[in-house]
Amino acid sequence: MGTDRIIATYRIETNHPLEQAAAIMAGEQSAGTFVKVPGETPELLERHGARVERITQLETAETPSLPGAKPPKDGGSARYRRAEVVLSFPFVNIGTSLTTCMTAVSGNLYELGPFSGLRLMDVAFPEAFNVHPGPQFGVEGTRRLTGIEGRPLLGTIIKPSVGLTPQQTADLVKTLCEAGLDFIKDDELQTNSPHSPLAERVQAVMRVINDHADRTGKKVMYAFNITGSLDEMQRGHDTVFKHGGTCVMVNLIAVGLAAVEWLRQQSQLPIHGHRAGWGALSRHPYLGWDYVAFQKFFRLAGVDHLHVNGLRNKFCESDPSVIAAAHECLTPMLNGYTVMPVFSSGQWAGQAPDTYAAIGSTDLLYLAGGGIMAHPDGPAAGVTSLREGWEAALKGIPLETYAETHPALGGALKLYGGL
Amino acid sequence: MGTDRIIATYRIETNHPLEQAAAIMAGEQSAGTFVKVPGETPELLERHGARVERITQLETAETPSLPGAKPPKDGGSARYRRAEVVLSFPFVNIGTSLTTCMTAVSGNLYELGPFSGLRLMDVAFPEAFNVHPGPQFGVEGTRRLTGIEGRPLLGTIIKPSVGLTPQQTADLVKTLCEAGLDFIKDDELQTNSPHSPLAERVQAVMRVINDHADRTGKKVMYAFNITGSLDEMQRGHDTVFKHGGTCVMVNLIAVGLAAVEWLRQQSQLPIHGHRAGWGALSRHPYLGWDYVAFQKFFRLAGVDHLHVNGLRNKFCESDPSVIAAAHECLTPMLNGYTVMPVFSSGQWAGQAPDTYAAIGSTDLLYLAGGGIMAHPDGPAAGVTSLREGWEAALKGIPLETYAETHPALGGALKLYGGL
Repeated sequence: MGTDRIIATYRIETNHPLEQAAAIMAGEQSAGTFVKVPGETPELLERHGARVERITQLETAETPSLPGAKPPKDGGSARYRRAEVVLSFPFVNIGTSLTTCMTAVSGNLYELGPFSGLRLMDVAFPEAFNVHPGPQFGVEGTRRLTGIEGRPLLGTIIKPSVGLTPQQTADLVKTLCEAGLDFIKDDELQTNSPHSPLAERVQAVMRVINDHADRTGKKVMYAFNITGSLDEMQRGHDTVFKHGGTCVMVNLIAVGLAAVEWLRQQSQLPIHGHRAGWGALSRHPYLGWDYVAFQKFFRLAGVDHLHVNGLRNKFCESDPSVIAAAHECLTPMLNGYTVMPVFSSGQWAGQAPDTYAAIGSTDLLYLAGGGIMAHPDGPAAGVTSLREGWEAALKGIPLETYAETHPALGGALKLYGGL
Repeated sequence: MGTDRIIATYRIETNHPLEQAAAIMAGEQSAGTFVKVPGETPELLERHGARVERITQLETAETPSLPGAKPPKDGGSARYRRAEVVLSFPFVNIGTSLTTCMTAVSGNLYELGPFSGLRLMDVAFPEAFNVHPGPQFGVEGTRRLTGIEGRPLLGTIIKPSVGLTPQQTADLVKTLCEAGLDFIKDDELQTNSPHSPLAERVQAVMRVINDHADRTGKKVMYAFNITGSLDEMQRGHDTVFKHGGTCVMVNLIAVGLAAVEWLRQQSQLPIHGHRAGWGALSRHPYLGWDYVAFQKFFRLAGVDHLHVNGLRNKFCESDPSVIAAAHECLTPMLNGYTVMPVFSSGQWAGQAPDTYAAIGSTDLLYLAGGGIMAHPDGPAAGVTSLREGWEAALKGIPLETYAETHPALGGALKLYGGL
């Protein structure tokens, strides 16, 4: 493969011959179309055609995974072959544009007639994509702003998701700061709404956070959800920055890739990337995107934190998928672009050992809700139990053993661990 | 239902009791969460909770449509119930923000444990959403700019999709203008690329189009694909406008909703909305989005043309789905917001009667490729055959009859119609 090509890996399912199906993908997403057209010279195809680099046949299926697929003229195979297909795209077609690249690797091809399954698994970018700024803060910058080293950042999400006034939010933030949290975030549903205008929320919350920092020396990072129109995001960012806030949050899929690129150019703060809506793109194993591919676009665009769900989460995502996603976030692309994976959903101290064993790093945000607020000895004990869970994980001591001398962890184990 | 609420209709599949499943959706996407939290008062839930407005049970399925769903504690039903669920969301949670609304109606809920299927079918917006500017040109403005009344605009897409130089593109545009087309567009893959920089392409193409207009009085509309970063889109738009171009095109999913809202604010030209990547969100009938819901967000944001595929297209979409989408584009939302549906993929004169019968309107863009370029008597006869096909459709005369006195249509029927 030429080093200046963009490489995309797919999982496909088709009852067409695999070579033919892969060639249709390559043609549709570059210089070809359904029928031969006049300007389609051999020279043009050589220079501008996407290439099928590899086809690896996998299992076959008796029935199609998705409806609507069209058989070849001869009727095709009675069974549906699955395969991994690697395509490469010429740089001259795309340049370093993220939105053009997204269109090429994940555009019309999901609708192509021959396929009863098609999923984008991974994308590899050539060196030229180093022009993108990537994360401005990343792991190191987030640690610097919070002052936390040697362990994950422990955090939570404001709940109820919506409905608290700015002052009620600030009151809850006071409790959470005093409980010892490093990080707090708005829910993805809570943006600049009529009942909690962002500017009022920022002022009320930052008064609490700044007071707490003055008293204790610890500046809790709060990710304010500035999701909105570009004007709203600009105003939101500026308000957060002006009041001493240290993080802005954005719903990546709702605002879109071009807006995230733009935000990174303006932002003086880390960007916390939420993936609300991700399930629509990922839930079927033979459709849409794998997160390994998806998150790369937003890392190049410049997000600093990316949600990955958590082990034994309350959603539908499997643990191996969560682990693969978190690994990817911590694996440098090109010259860097490492982001902090955000673990959340049903997390408490209990997942710390398995998470550490799987990821081999503490460079992560670990968010718990009930794991903090519902602790029998209160939120401070909840936060302590999370920290103790991670201490035990790092020391390789079983949670049960560590809990014998650490009562907060013991309380958490009793409540959540069924001990 | 309160008239100030946002109404969303879903198709779901679950082995949980339907009432319980619907309540989980409503809770997750508003003031609730997995566990009861301290601030979740009855007053807050009343004011901020999404409400289940209606549940209509549909058929049951033996096996789950999507993997990963989690049964209820008692194991749940052995079968998977399908239903239509209508939720309403309070305005105070969302305001008129399109990105917040998208997060509320289509966010985390695709990943919720109880669901083996969940698809957003429709959204109804309250009057307050009239604050959005919507299409600046729409059907009427597009007709005014092209001077075409009483029939669909006939158009084509530059092919090969990528690989032509700006001058080669302009040479092809000359042929297409002389053939009598009303509308020409860049392929979704052709943006501002190293091999065809947008500024050079605009200059070369507009020289041809302006010359043609000077000679004939007919200004062909060319949709230049300005998809890219915001800076690129701004420069692209300004270049098109400066050289007398009359349309810009953008890949909606790649750039995202916030960027489209922003573009509408800046744009002095109609925005041609391409939906590349749409299949990932729509291809499974129990996942993602129906286009009826999806297109509303981009209409409010201000797109003027929206792709809907075409009847008997080469992709996987069924004719009823195409018809429903096109109908919606022409059905006013709130105070208007009507856009021109764009029919393409495998179109020629042959689909004109069925398209007209299904849509009952000529307010559409009808794009053909092979239907024009491969006509036995050349591209001009190809364009004539499309026009004649629509004349026959409007007059209610069978194509075969009309072809007896219209040789261009006759040639097309012979080639594509198997006559």
